[in-house]
Amino acid sequence: MSTPPATTKGEATRMAILDRAYAIASATGLEGLSIGALAAAVGMSKSGVFVHFGSREDLQLAVLDTAARRFADRILPTAMKSQAGMPRLRALMSTWFEWIRDQRGSCLLLSAISEYDDRPGPLRDRIVGYQLRWREELARAVAATVARGELPHETDTAQLAFELNAVALAVQHEAAVAGVEAAAQHGARMLERLLGAAAHLRT
Amino acid sequence: MSTPPATTKGEATRMAILDRAYAIASATGLEGLSIGALAAAVGMSKSGVFVHFGSREDLQLAVLDTAARRFADRILPTAMKSQAGMPRLRALMSTWFEWIRDQRGSCLLLSAISEYDDRPGPLRDRIVGYQLRWREELARAVAATVARGELPHETDTAQLAFELNAVALAVQHEAAVAGVEAAAQHGARMLERLLGAAAHLRT
Repeated sequence: MSTPPATTKGEATRMAILDRAYAIASATGLEGLSIGALAAAVGMSKSGVFVHFGSREDLQLAVLDTAARRFADRILPTAMKSQAGMPRLRALMSTWFEWIRDQRGSCLLLSAISEYDDRPGPLRDRIVGYQLRWREELARAVAATVARGELPHETDTAQLAFELNAVALAVQHEAAVAGVEAAAQHGARMLERLLGAAAHLRT
Repeated sequence: MSTPPATTKGEATRMAILDRAYAIASATGLEGLSIGALAAAVGMSKSGVFVHFGSREDLQLAVLDTAARRFADRILPTAMKSQAGMPRLRALMSTWFEWIRDQRGSCLLLSAISEYDDRPGPLRDRIVGYQLRWREELARAVAATVARGELPHETDTAQLAFELNAVALAVQHEAAVAGVEAAAQHGARMLERLLGAAAHLRT
């Protein structure tokens, strides 16, 4: 309410820069981001961009935060509309598949891990942190399903969360190889196979 | 036999360049390859490298071919030592997990797909081509297992090949998040769950 217009405008500019940076990084990877190209894309000077992001790494970290927020904003509210337990677990996965489809098969957060796995530093730490948080979210959804008796008491929640993550990775990978539609179909069948196997505690 | 020494030496130099290029690309991605940095790394001039590879793209394509050959040389002979059917399918997967472990969680071919999914061209085509060939190899191993009666007659070989590929993707991803050992363990359990489900045709 009492925010001065200058700050509001500054925040709007920052958001516009981030929006463009997110698009560039989605297409070419986080390492594909350069302040120069970004400045040109948003019609600003490099120093204008530096006012908002002190360094290229700050910008890359902000893009990661943007990606994580957009992902969570897309998946979680939809999943929360479904009943806790198996319906929510399924909603979570199907919305995730839709997200991958919307990103035309290229989720920045999933791709970032292979970009930075060999490069220790703040970017890698942030990426791994988001992966772990998301894995916890999946494990929580599995645990809630177990608590409602829809999966066996002995279910290894971390293992099943790993497997659910695997389905999404495979859908993203397959989208690049065989197209998003075929990828989503294979992914949906795999999800049913895994949930069915988990329900019967096969291995 | 009758190859002149000059050619042999040329071939050895080319292999030495490729070996270094493969290491660089494994660490930083195919896009991280530059003729200049590579020339410095092998102690040659840029024009010396250009004698062997006419362009950066030629070099990148040759690195992809090297990666595919090394992968196949590592996986297939080991798998072939096992009896056709389920033993070979398992050997194929466990040797694949070992390969990922040896690459310290970063398989160039798997990573390349997310690097080039948005960039049409010869590199993307080559990468997708290798992915499809490998998927066919997996589907063939599944079909042989079906033929021996170790998986149900109705098995969808392409679907199961997709799922086996998913396990390897997840192991690679998990290696970066939680380390190669935890990744290999989760992967082995997931493989058993999928094969168990496939054996009982749980969709």
